[in-house]
Amino acid sequence: MIKDIENKIHTQIPMTRLMQLELKSIDNTRLITTAPLHINVNDKGTAFGGSLSSITIISSWCIAYYLSKKLNLEDSNIVIVKNETKFLRPVTKDIICTTYIPKDEDIKILKSKLEIKNSGTIKINAQVIENKEICVDFRGTYYIKKV
Amino acid sequence: MIKDIENKIHTQIPMTRLMQLELKSIDNTRLITTAPLHINVNDKGTAFGGSLSSITIISSWCIAYYLSKKLNLEDSNIVIVKNETKFLRPVTKDIICTTYIPKDEDIKILKSKLEIKNSGTIKINAQVIENKEICVDFRGTYYIKKV
Repeated sequence: MIKDIENKIHTQIPMTRLMQLELKSIDNTRLITTAPLHINVNDKGTAFGGSLSSITIISSWCIAYYLSKKLNLEDSNIVIVKNETKFLRPVTKDIICTTYIPKDEDIKILKSKLEIKNSGTIKINAQVIENKEICVDFRGTYYIKKV
Repeated sequence: MIKDIENKIHTQIPMTRLMQLELKSIDNTRLITTAPLHINVNDKGTAFGGSLSSITIISSWCIAYYLSKKLNLEDSNIVIVKNETKFLRPVTKDIICTTYIPKDEDIKILKSKLEIKNSGTIKINAQVIENKEICVDFRGTYYIKKV
């Protein structure tokens, strides 16, 4: 499943390929994505804010896409609506992003919205953690529409 | 001046070169930056949220860097602290980002903070506008430290 999603975004979103984004694993709680520091570096030798923003945005989009498949949406249009991101500490190594699967309750609400009005929003949280400390904390809202 | 900044970021931040970011013009009120749609496209044929986020983040960083030079800081460390971004409409053409120079009052406050404690924060607003409508509205906070 995640290699299919990786292939989809690498093919359709060139920047994800250029930043060397990889979808590593997914379980019931989280998706792990990575991108190497060397290509995503800034003038200070740490990870570029734009790359940190991109990895959290696309990883959260992948969760929304993953949920849409779990909810049996054959085809859907998924877009980011808004986000708030805190850059708490510099990222000094290859970027490892943890994106959390929303709570069952929130997925149930999304499911009923999709059934009632063919669209719904969901909030997704992603973090870049290094040495057990949160470096980037992202909270995004995504809109999913059946097509 | 802006070609020096463009050269600096293209050299030190590879993703800005890969996304084909260009610094087009600057005046007393705003910086204009661009990036072509074809390389920054998403699965829907519109601009990728990660690219929109990257262009607003780096353009605002450029304003902070520009201000640091205007305030005669020979060397400085400038990082993004946090941001809020609203994605109001899809961007369907090459990305044109307008980043606003903060108000004189805010620059004066930054100047006095830098004099008193060698560091300060400043809020910067960037927008992607297409057909006279705001598609992306970014508000970021940057931290500038004399080194």
